[in-house]
Amino acid sequence: MAIIGISRRSGPGSYNLMENMLEYGYECKIFPINPNAEEILGVKAYPNVKDVGQEIDLAIISLPRDLVVKSVKQCIDAGVKAIIVVTQGFADADARGKELQQEMVTAARHNGVRILGPNTLGVVNNFNRFTTSFMPLVREKAPVGLICQSGVFFVGVAVFSGQIGKGIDIGNACDIGFCEALEYMGDDPDIKIIAIHMEGLEQTRRFLSLARRVAKEKPVVVFKTGQSEAGAKAAASHSGAMAGHYQIHKAALKQAGLLFLDKDGQMGDAVRVLLHQPYMRGSRIAVITPTGAGGIMASDALEKYGLELAPLSEKTISKISELSPEWMPLGNPLDLWPAIMGHGLKDVYAEAIEVVMEDPNVDGILCLAIAPELPDFALLDASEDVNKMVPEERQKPVVGWVYGPNVKEISERFEKEKRVTIFQTIEQAAYSLSLLRDRQLFIERAEREG
Amino acid sequence: MAIIGISRRSGPGSYNLMENMLEYGYECKIFPINPNAEEILGVKAYPNVKDVGQEIDLAIISLPRDLVVKSVKQCIDAGVKAIIVVTQGFADADARGKELQQEMVTAARHNGVRILGPNTLGVVNNFNRFTTSFMPLVREKAPVGLICQSGVFFVGVAVFSGQIGKGIDIGNACDIGFCEALEYMGDDPDIKIIAIHMEGLEQTRRFLSLARRVAKEKPVVVFKTGQSEAGAKAAASHSGAMAGHYQIHKAALKQAGLLFLDKDGQMGDAVRVLLHQPYMRGSRIAVITPTGAGGIMASDALEKYGLELAPLSEKTISKISELSPEWMPLGNPLDLWPAIMGHGLKDVYAEAIEVVMEDPNVDGILCLAIAPELPDFALLDASEDVNKMVPEERQKPVVGWVYGPNVKEISERFEKEKRVTIFQTIEQAAYSLSLLRDRQLFIERAEREG
Repeated sequence: MAIIGISRRSGPGSYNLMENMLEYGYECKIFPINPNAEEILGVKAYPNVKDVGQEIDLAIISLPRDLVVKSVKQCIDAGVKAIIVVTQGFADADARGKELQQEMVTAARHNGVRILGPNTLGVVNNFNRFTTSFMPLVREKAPVGLICQSGVFFVGVAVFSGQIGKGIDIGNACDIGFCEALEYMGDDPDIKIIAIHMEGLEQTRRFLSLARRVAKEKPVVVFKTGQSEAGAKAAASHSGAMAGHYQIHKAALKQAGLLFLDKDGQMGDAVRVLLHQPYMRGSRIAVITPTGAGGIMASDALEKYGLELAPLSEKTISKISELSPEWMPLGNPLDLWPAIMGHGLKDVYAEAIEVVMEDPNVDGILCLAIAPELPDFALLDASEDVNKMVPEERQKPVVGWVYGPNVKEISERFEKEKRVTIFQTIEQAAYSLSLLRDRQLFIERAEREG
Repeated sequence: MAIIGISRRSGPGSYNLMENMLEYGYECKIFPINPNAEEILGVKAYPNVKDVGQEIDLAIISLPRDLVVKSVKQCIDAGVKAIIVVTQGFADADARGKELQQEMVTAARHNGVRILGPNTLGVVNNFNRFTTSFMPLVREKAPVGLICQSGVFFVGVAVFSGQIGKGIDIGNACDIGFCEALEYMGDDPDIKIIAIHMEGLEQTRRFLSLARRVAKEKPVVVFKTGQSEAGAKAAASHSGAMAGHYQIHKAALKQAGLLFLDKDGQMGDAVRVLLHQPYMRGSRIAVITPTGAGGIMASDALEKYGLELAPLSEKTISKISELSPEWMPLGNPLDLWPAIMGHGLKDVYAEAIEVVMEDPNVDGILCLAIAPELPDFALLDASEDVNKMVPEERQKPVVGWVYGPNVKEISERFEKEKRVTIFQTIEQAAYSLSLLRDRQLFIERAEREG
């Protein structure tokens, strides 16, 4: 692999991608190309890609934009088959940039060479410790594949997507675009969930047909930006993408079976719930709560996302009635507080989870819980008891929300065995359940339609 | 102050409110009432409130529901002027509960005694270390007053409201209701912002007129639950409240100048932004960003909340142009990345903040920033530089969003001097700016209308 335009500077602020690559643990052959250096970071450097004289599977170009096209052509001459152009300033910039981009695409296509970019951080693969990013990244072999049009999704992985195992930043998508990236992630057995950040979409028909095929195999979540007029205008000068008509894209992508997100902050939650919870067979939710007020908020949020309060079976109601004062009107949301005051929180919670897991009227469970300080108030922590009652193999998703002075620790306890997935708001918990329902409905539709 | 129905049990799981009160630091006289105890937690106990023989300013009743009415009457006979009824099982429960509630209200009203509750955690006052809550609470002398219909807002303070300094849980609101609580918080000089959780509202006309008066003095934020049919039904069996028609309530409360929230998770953000940022004189926002993709997301979010991208002045554009490559199309969002690559992140950020702070076309600033690991990547942390350029006295709010591997630490650095307020999503940052705009519009309207 050749790195063209690699700086002799290193350390923070130098954005030296070779340094990042070595630090990431990449172990195959690197040929740094720099006419002014004998060696870079201890590796022998070459003045030009044509001087390497060995097979080069990939070249990464990070030169000032006016030198890029010439370098692409030299790579082609040197027999390079794939090129990543990191440099900005092409279709994302001015008329001259658009011309330069066209010129490099034409040269590549004539020679069967593929280009990723320009204006990209390139790729990351945590399964073989490879990245072309010049920014430091989080590393985890998560079965999540990210396809995006901005390095922000690599760098800000935690806030956007939870964890990713592999990522492709298609940047301006001059050659390799959403179709190629989706096909790759779709066929990759390491990847169980695909997360897409999309500014603009070309080859729409091809993409939708491919998306439908991939979505049958694994969930594909898409966050489409450039929703507004202002955002669409900004997209044109970011990746050169035409954002198109948002509502039409939304309808088409949903029809193809993609899970469509509306706003930033949802991607990480979507990935987590799809990774850890089963799809949902119906839309009837049992709400287990120690707070009546929280039950009301849950009812509001569920209705907003097309879900309903399960009509709990008589058996469920009578089991909880036995623990509650006689005056307590029981229903769904299942308000456990009066029972807790009489029988202790843990016993009541365990019983409630057990009965709703078995209740044939319930398709999914939304569990609200207190997050007390530990160890002083361990009696108020239901995490262990809930986990005990949620089987590893199950057909009903269990999501939750916790409140109190110790949210982080108690959330981690709930999620320890990945049986319960906790969200920061009741709203997001309800929304995540709706994604599990949408996913199941798509699977059923796809099976019917063949 | 008398505590009636106080248990001899203490420690976690006993929900002993006297224990919590002592632990909270309350130093005035407590009279525990328990016919089976000589003393409780080291304090002399009395068999009946009538046996105390000293002035009792407040009685807290935490007895089984069938004993409550009798106890209320004994308190009245003993000359108690105010009673908090913690016990559940009244209008929140069955027909018998409704009768009992009516009976205690009638007795109190005939004798000029006020009741808070039933079905309440009571009050918390961090300014004089007093609480009647039997659940442990967070303590901070924050100038935020909370009025709610559930203890969940006391216990889950951080997730709901940020911090609170004083709180009133009106519970079933049999006597003291939203009007009394709002009047109290409105007149309280310790309180600068009022946060309300509302299930149902009675005395609507009185409340709206009072709300309008209070809102002129300090911001009042309201989160109305029971929005959905399912939620309204749940509200009826939680606090006995009639949730009413959500859209009508929403319109009326907004008209009265209250800031209206749509979902859980917004209250804390609303309180923070109102506490630390100036109201916003117009709706033109400058977006400062090192990521083009983030700029697009910001554009989408701003439009969603009725804000617009400021048409940056020529001076602003030319200052940033000097730092950017010539091919870079500059506008708003102000994409700083190409300039950062040439001049370093800190200098570019500082310059950008300085020029938009001075730009007469800009009413507010939304700043996106990287959250790098420290100290290794300190060169990518703009927090100090941004803070330096945001004056303590200013007319423009500055809100932000950070992404990367170190969100918590970098957020804290940005917020160190409370000049920049950071949010977990771009969406919430944009929404929070819209609250500052709504607040300013109300102030202007109120001034016009007198």
